[in-house]
Amino acid sequence: MTTNNTSENTLDMGFSALRESYKTGVATPASVMADIRQRAADYKDHNIWIHLLTESEQAVWLDALKDKDMDTHPLWGIPFAIKDNIDLADIPTTAGCDAFAYTPKKSSQVVQQLIDAGAIPVGKTNLDQFATGLNGTRSPIGACHNSFNYDYISGGSSSGSAVAVALGLASFSLGTDTAGSGRIPACFNNLVGVKPSIGLLSATGMLPACRSLDCMTIFAYNTDDANVALAAAEGFDERDGYSRQNPFDNQARQYGLRTGPLKVGVIAAHQLKFFGDESYEKAYLQTLELLKEQGFAFQEIDYASFDEIAQLLYEGPWVSERYIATQPLIDDNPEAIFPVVREIIAPGGKPPATALFKAQYRINYLKQICLAQMAQVDCLLTPTAGRHFTMAEMLEEPIKRNSELGYYTNFMNLIDLASIAVPTVMTENDMPFGITLVGPTFSDRMLMSIANRIQQALPLKKGALEVMATPSNTTSVGHNQTIDVMVCG
Amino acid sequence: MTTNNTSENTLDMGFSALRESYKTGVATPASVMADIRQRAADYKDHNIWIHLLTESEQAVWLDALKDKDMDTHPLWGIPFAIKDNIDLADIPTTAGCDAFAYTPKKSSQVVQQLIDAGAIPVGKTNLDQFATGLNGTRSPIGACHNSFNYDYISGGSSSGSAVAVALGLASFSLGTDTAGSGRIPACFNNLVGVKPSIGLLSATGMLPACRSLDCMTIFAYNTDDANVALAAAEGFDERDGYSRQNPFDNQARQYGLRTGPLKVGVIAAHQLKFFGDESYEKAYLQTLELLKEQGFAFQEIDYASFDEIAQLLYEGPWVSERYIATQPLIDDNPEAIFPVVREIIAPGGKPPATALFKAQYRINYLKQICLAQMAQVDCLLTPTAGRHFTMAEMLEEPIKRNSELGYYTNFMNLIDLASIAVPTVMTENDMPFGITLVGPTFSDRMLMSIANRIQQALPLKKGALEVMATPSNTTSVGHNQTIDVMVCG
Repeated sequence: MTTNNTSENTLDMGFSALRESYKTGVATPASVMADIRQRAADYKDHNIWIHLLTESEQAVWLDALKDKDMDTHPLWGIPFAIKDNIDLADIPTTAGCDAFAYTPKKSSQVVQQLIDAGAIPVGKTNLDQFATGLNGTRSPIGACHNSFNYDYISGGSSSGSAVAVALGLASFSLGTDTAGSGRIPACFNNLVGVKPSIGLLSATGMLPACRSLDCMTIFAYNTDDANVALAAAEGFDERDGYSRQNPFDNQARQYGLRTGPLKVGVIAAHQLKFFGDESYEKAYLQTLELLKEQGFAFQEIDYASFDEIAQLLYEGPWVSERYIATQPLIDDNPEAIFPVVREIIAPGGKPPATALFKAQYRINYLKQICLAQMAQVDCLLTPTAGRHFTMAEMLEEPIKRNSELGYYTNFMNLIDLASIAVPTVMTENDMPFGITLVGPTFSDRMLMSIANRIQQALPLKKGALEVMATPSNTTSVGHNQTIDVMVCG
Repeated sequence: MTTNNTSENTLDMGFSALRESYKTGVATPASVMADIRQRAADYKDHNIWIHLLTESEQAVWLDALKDKDMDTHPLWGIPFAIKDNIDLADIPTTAGCDAFAYTPKKSSQVVQQLIDAGAIPVGKTNLDQFATGLNGTRSPIGACHNSFNYDYISGGSSSGSAVAVALGLASFSLGTDTAGSGRIPACFNNLVGVKPSIGLLSATGMLPACRSLDCMTIFAYNTDDANVALAAAEGFDERDGYSRQNPFDNQARQYGLRTGPLKVGVIAAHQLKFFGDESYEKAYLQTLELLKEQGFAFQEIDYASFDEIAQLLYEGPWVSERYIATQPLIDDNPEAIFPVVREIIAPGGKPPATALFKAQYRINYLKQICLAQMAQVDCLLTPTAGRHFTMAEMLEEPIKRNSELGYYTNFMNLIDLASIAVPTVMTENDMPFGITLVGPTFSDRMLMSIANRIQQALPLKKGALEVMATPSNTTSVGHNQTIDVMVCG
């Protein structure tokens, strides 16, 4: 099965292209939605959607666009996909588990803000059940397939959200990320994956995986689009206990093109792991070479503390949060849960609070070591994933290989970092590869500005489409330094 | 037994007075220390000290003063007391439990910084065992007695540290505070009690009570002295997982006299509790009247969410942290622990991690409600304690009454607030009463500047001494407003 037929060669679902076609009258939001539904039928076997919205389900938002000025609504008519652990009013939220499903009366805070900004929901996307997984195969409706090669995993847990954008069935999408679910599928489908600082996007109306660690995330073709979507999606929400005020120096207008010298931390060579995937190893080394030519300087960092933190996510007591999130189903009807997911979550009722406190102490200790290293560089750069598995390889050893997928991603939320996954090169097998930039809490726009530079330096296509993804923002931004000025009065 | 004999009527242990007497040659640090040891003998029955240092144990620090310039060492020759859950090199740390005791090779980070600034340790002070209590009676060496009236509790758990300063046996002291241990004894002994933001003072070398909540604290006669001691004590320490960088607008030089209009949140009348202590109720109302005359405006806040948080501290899974802190003793030899302390800590091994996560979710939710109210005012103001119990009353119902002591204090560290206890008036029974100012994380200097204004407006004596405590800093500071200025380059 091929995923790019001829009719799609000129398809451009980027924000600028769509807005231009709306302005010139070449298309309307309704015609774009009709086209999406038609093309979605071609990809039925990819298992992208849990609920693709019908024309009548979409009507209310398309109608509302008449009262919205395109110039003041940055997402006017832009189609977006929603991972099915995020509420969209009057549409079931299933988290990939029918026995768990409910139909919310209200949309999640972020979905509502996006709709208010003019965006149009396309549907609810497939996921590793309860967002427990990084591979995209753990769904009762069937594994989600990669947008470049049907035999490869899509990555997860935000599998459908990534594949939908990569195939041009949405212009951006919402995922969630606890252990890497907003980054791994971005890597495997040639997309930008923004994992914001915890609390930048409201979690109201989002089903928790690990409530203390979860972030809503954004998949987009490039950093320009991601910044527009993020600006509409973000905001303090006092109903969400983990919501935080975004400081001034991380606001949308701080996004631009990071110019000047850059010192970037990279993992010491002996700590890199590619789990036998030579094509990914080559792509990573090639990425570093290309970036060096673009003025990036690299400094090796010791990954040991990051790795120890990463291992605590699934081996430590945080699985208790997943247990809570699936109560009472996990207690009353565990058979309704996908077997490999149940196997992971079921022990979560057992760890004592003492184990959790001890793990938190350890993580806080390790965090200081990590932050001290990060203070020496502009950001960290890691492979987003060490290996891209085929479906067959993944299903052979579903838990071990999932854990391998998290080698570079699991630590992130446990120590409250921001990150963005960026595609950098295609492998020798013509599959996507990408890296992740990592920075401290509320470094989101700084990271996106560096990612913009990488996307401009290493031009690639939009997802699995045939048009270029290169962002166009060239507003120069340097290293953020802030000075507090006190005003007395 | 009286606690103020004639010879002490003119004793002034404040920083300025001591420095003046050193400069003029009226006294030397050695003569002050000898005098302290002599006077300490008079208060033997107060059970202040677990280990009062001998002349030879102090010699090393007194000798070192010769190489230190008084002008560049703000604590030159200033005697301070150390709660016996904080390490002083080569002296046993007991936490009030001989079976637990060990002799550290190094001083805690904060003690070392104070010594480096010229301060001289006087001894290790009595405490509620393992810092578990707010009353000062839970010690195998005997209950610590109040500095004003031997029949009253000293407050705890930092009991000896407060009473030592109040009686002029030290000029300031270190306590610790998890649930109120750095504030309740300040209130009962007519002292300022600074409970800094978590992580402002290093916890390296401090025995944990609840590791995730603990703060080291400072008892002093007034805010001027407290600010000098705090400036020497604070600082980022990467070995402490909870240590944090202090932002610019909370640094020592931001301390001054808060002038101008002030809007202060006070607890709605129906939510105030004095547990039958009319003298404390009157003192509180009198305090508000006096402050109103001084330009304070009050706005009622709803205390329900604060109170719900407070109750979670002992009724929720945080007792698991106390369990961890006493391991392996609590597992191997529980009989070695003071009975009422054992009764509190022993169940701490039982709560599951799920209970802790659920409690953390609830607290984060409630925190947003609390912070939204606090954003409307310059700070909160509460009674520090609702009632001052006699020894006899306390021992009648040790757990219930301890919990009553925490009604206004327990919530503080669970939602990461800063606070300072300030004496305001003497009760009709000639006992000390005080209030606590509460602000967000890193509002320490703002709170101290308001406390300075209160101390200047309501002159009181230094602890149980006969000299006035009124601070002299009159540098006007207004409401802190910070503007971030970005420097690109």
